[in-house]
Amino acid sequence: MPPGDWYVEEETFGYIQGVLLRERLQRHRSPFQNMEVIDSQLFGRCLVLDGALQTSEWDEFMYHEMLVHVPLVTHPDARRVLVIGGGDGGTLRRVLDHPQTEPIQVEIDASVIENSQKFLPSISNGAFQNPRAEVLIADGLQYVREHPGEFDVVLVDSTDPVGPAIPLFEEPFYRDVYKTLAEDGLLAAQSSSPLYMVSDLQAQVRNLRAVFPIVRTYLGLVPAYPGGLWSYTIASKRYDPVRVGKADIAARLSREAITPRYYSPDIHHAAFVLPPFIAEILS
Amino acid sequence: MPPGDWYVEEETFGYIQGVLLRERLQRHRSPFQNMEVIDSQLFGRCLVLDGALQTSEWDEFMYHEMLVHVPLVTHPDARRVLVIGGGDGGTLRRVLDHPQTEPIQVEIDASVIENSQKFLPSISNGAFQNPRAEVLIADGLQYVREHPGEFDVVLVDSTDPVGPAIPLFEEPFYRDVYKTLAEDGLLAAQSSSPLYMVSDLQAQVRNLRAVFPIVRTYLGLVPAYPGGLWSYTIASKRYDPVRVGKADIAARLSREAITPRYYSPDIHHAAFVLPPFIAEILS
Repeated sequence: MPPGDWYVEEETFGYIQGVLLRERLQRHRSPFQNMEVIDSQLFGRCLVLDGALQTSEWDEFMYHEMLVHVPLVTHPDARRVLVIGGGDGGTLRRVLDHPQTEPIQVEIDASVIENSQKFLPSISNGAFQNPRAEVLIADGLQYVREHPGEFDVVLVDSTDPVGPAIPLFEEPFYRDVYKTLAEDGLLAAQSSSPLYMVSDLQAQVRNLRAVFPIVRTYLGLVPAYPGGLWSYTIASKRYDPVRVGKADIAARLSREAITPRYYSPDIHHAAFVLPPFIAEILS
Repeated sequence: MPPGDWYVEEETFGYIQGVLLRERLQRHRSPFQNMEVIDSQLFGRCLVLDGALQTSEWDEFMYHEMLVHVPLVTHPDARRVLVIGGGDGGTLRRVLDHPQTEPIQVEIDASVIENSQKFLPSISNGAFQNPRAEVLIADGLQYVREHPGEFDVVLVDSTDPVGPAIPLFEEPFYRDVYKTLAEDGLLAAQSSSPLYMVSDLQAQVRNLRAVFPIVRTYLGLVPAYPGGLWSYTIASKRYDPVRVGKADIAARLSREAITPRYYSPDIHHAAFVLPPFIAEILS
């Protein structure tokens, strides 16, 4: 190991990724998880939950723009948007970029929001203070069960399918999400690494296909995650994300004055193009 | 560091990536470089040159298919193809997938070819024994200077722009490549990480633009490389890779009986779609 203080993340599949640290800023144990905030030379400040890097100042836009803009542009008029998880605020912030939205965020762990606002304010960029947003500290599983028919879009911005997050990847939850969605509603969720967590991705897509008629997986870069590539999946009752025209996307971004750094009309469509070896694992 | 024997690669930008090893197979010092062959749990066997992982059994198809098929499909009838470097044979093998080609490979270091054939035979998969291929142990810089007007396509499959490989990324070499190409010829080269080697990529594209009228950078996954994303650049006298029709690509692959695992007609076009933050560094 080279000299210096390194944050090293080990994956079960025999892989480590590490970043040289400038500082370890915070360590906190909540009733739900262990949290750490580190400051790295390459990625800037990063949020770590239970030993897994969740987001970094440097690359958060890649993850959050793809999780949010792809589904919100697919739905022609999403107003009632539910965010489950996402305590760093990067998802909520991109939902608020769309001026017609009135989002509700349900995060189980208040301390993720508190520490993210304190140490990583550039990620939420004031989203938690926006009067259009409502933020609840509650269990997303229960919230969804208790609010049928109330949302146009549900975004699941959770940790990986390990430990307490497992139910957020399973069929009973997706059935509840189906019920909480309007008749033209849709869900988008992070869906693991298509390179290193293939069986997780396959199981999640299988569970979504058991519930929703349209299920589409798309890809995007997240350099701070193992492998650098991440997948997202949209499960939809009516609107198909690959059928949204590029000109319509461009007009929408222009009208709503959204200038993403990762997402674009061309990226929207390119993200659904899967290399054959990835298409195969989802066939 | 977790227990076990790890191959760890440190990047100057404060990043490490490591794979758990099953075995260290070979260590060799040639007149040109230090070479190592390792066997890892995640990537299988890997070739390491001067401390930088060059290719692995697991992901070599992603790199080699993108370096070769994109330019060879862009040129409507590439027969005379020059490969510079590429001692593992993965590039030569994909050139030979196109039945009309008669490739010449110029590799400076015979021991890379020898050790790759001995320890990583699945990568070249018999390419060096193919009677259509000619393999020369020579300096690519000199070879190009001495063979004007002889090639349809030149593929530069080199190490990164460090040490002895630096001239392969500079304008004088590109001027010689321009001369060695037919009047409708084109070059394709690996062009560094668009995430972590931005100034290398910018310099290379600037040098290519000084010589060729059409210069296009495209992206592809290479999980074994830092960041997981790699860039390639085509520099062309006449044919523009973004103007090749998808149906034409599909017909070509079908006619030539090529069944890639990463490349496809849709991937050909998606690869040229750059996220705005990458397009900006090339503007």
